[in-house]
Amino acid sequence: MKAKVHITLKNGVLDPQGKAIQHSLVSLGFSGVEDVRQGKVIELDLKDQDKAQARADLEKMCKTLLANTVIENYSIELE
Amino acid sequence: MKAKVHITLKNGVLDPQGKAIQHSLVSLGFSGVEDVRQGKVIELDLKDQDKAQARADLEKMCKTLLANTVIENYSIELE
Repeated sequence: MKAKVHITLKNGVLDPQGKAIQHSLVSLGFSGVEDVRQGKVIELDLKDQDKAQARADLEKMCKTLLANTVIENYSIELE
Repeated sequence: MKAKVHITLKNGVLDPQGKAIQHSLVSLGFSGVEDVRQGKVIELDLKDQDKAQARADLEKMCKTLLANTVIENYSIELE
């Protein structure tokens, strides 16, 4: 089973990488870019065939390793 | 207008970061994790109101700055 986990910084958390991208885009001439935030996508191949079990495992993975829940939000997408 | 750009490594390109995540997950007890690939999401706020224009600009941004098209694929999502 394929799964995607999206990890993004919470609102209010500074994102210097996003700011750097925004400045670069503006200096390349894309002046309409008002804000940029960068996040991560993690694509996983799971052996599990049970969706509920897979979702529970993914929740645990996010909390223990994939996301820093103090400053990041995560969302899980199962295919 | 909000846009999301997903950037993932092409198939066949080694992803050491993904491999490291996979090994960590397996050693944490998630033995069902068969493969992991890590990518990026870039969320942009654009001044443009015209969807076609925004998409064309985003294509250009991806090609010039956001993605390395030799080893990465990108996909654009407009909201």
